[in-house]
Amino acid sequence: MKIFDISWPISESMTEYKDGKSVKFNPSKSMENNGAREWQITLGNHTGTHIDNPAHFLATGKTIDKLALNQVIGPCRVLDLTAVTEKITADDLVPLGIIKDEIILLKTTNSFREPTDKFTYSFVYIDEQAAQYLATQNIKAIGFDYLGIERNQPDHETHKAFMQFNIPIIEGLRLGTVPAGSYFFVCLPLYTVGLDSAPARAVLIEGLEIK
Amino acid sequence: MKIFDISWPISESMTEYKDGKSVKFNPSKSMENNGAREWQITLGNHTGTHIDNPAHFLATGKTIDKLALNQVIGPCRVLDLTAVTEKITADDLVPLGIIKDEIILLKTTNSFREPTDKFTYSFVYIDEQAAQYLATQNIKAIGFDYLGIERNQPDHETHKAFMQFNIPIIEGLRLGTVPAGSYFFVCLPLYTVGLDSAPARAVLIEGLEIK
Repeated sequence: MKIFDISWPISESMTEYKDGKSVKFNPSKSMENNGAREWQITLGNHTGTHIDNPAHFLATGKTIDKLALNQVIGPCRVLDLTAVTEKITADDLVPLGIIKDEIILLKTTNSFREPTDKFTYSFVYIDEQAAQYLATQNIKAIGFDYLGIERNQPDHETHKAFMQFNIPIIEGLRLGTVPAGSYFFVCLPLYTVGLDSAPARAVLIEGLEIK
Repeated sequence: MKIFDISWPISESMTEYKDGKSVKFNPSKSMENNGAREWQITLGNHTGTHIDNPAHFLATGKTIDKLALNQVIGPCRVLDLTAVTEKITADDLVPLGIIKDEIILLKTTNSFREPTDKFTYSFVYIDEQAAQYLATQNIKAIGFDYLGIERNQPDHETHKAFMQFNIPIIEGLRLGTVPAGSYFFVCLPLYTVGLDSAPARAVLIEGLEIK
């Protein structure tokens, strides 16, 4: 069994969406004063690797505590889209044979950026038609390797294409060291009650199978 | 494949250790004002389900970002200790045949408390000798079903017994609905850089095997 950690390291110096500065780590106990270390963590719920659930953009969408975990635990495919330079279109995806109930992770050149780089507005993104194609294939979840999946869409059409089908969107994956292929995927968001979305840790596992 | 979520729901009204009030959810965007929901999360890093790594109590112990994830991903056993009324001793554990590299989760009557109950100081705990027994069996990780694993130990002997062997301690599991037995365990802490410990989500999976 081999485990790939595909999560974005969380720190005060990490890349945040549009260079927001949401992360603060404040010591609440120290080894010197208390003989123990403890910290207070503050962060936006869309920081680093996280799952956007439909409540993010849909008035009646499900919050993250209502996410069925079998949507983010199971066999997945990492698809190589590193040849794409601006946006992923349906034409890029159709030849890849995506079928119902797959968990699909899209690996792009975004994964080659450092996790503490300044935010780039020119990240590779998923266009609306590509999102509609994936959603109507009835995939279980979509994973992407930047802190957003769309650019300059005031109505958030790419997000909503997935959300209208109750498909969770995993943003902020780090796929730079992962070869394209099939894996067992586990992405676990914090079990925050009532929030639209939550920070998560995600791994790919080789050598696991469903009995 | 069947998934059991064994995580503690995180909210402002959840049970916290010694009734601390570390959790705050503040809206940073709302559907009414922004057409989107977003939240700022504040919480102690020992809130709810979380992993204590050795840096919590050992001056030179490893921080949570250095945890090898294969210590918290793999086959596990949930052991039924619901007959124990005060503390788990080595005598309770020796008959259970615990061996090297197991991930061991101890289910006690703590799991029958509600996740928003007032903190109880009389939780079932793990005594020092039981911890030393488990640690010297070279288990991979220990999981427990309350927000602490020890009581009234100013020098934290139970924690340190595990930490001296670099064994992560998963606190705040919820095992009330889980029958004792063998499962595939996945516990993923937030990838917080430099902190001693971190909040986590944990699941048990039935029907998975290592090839």
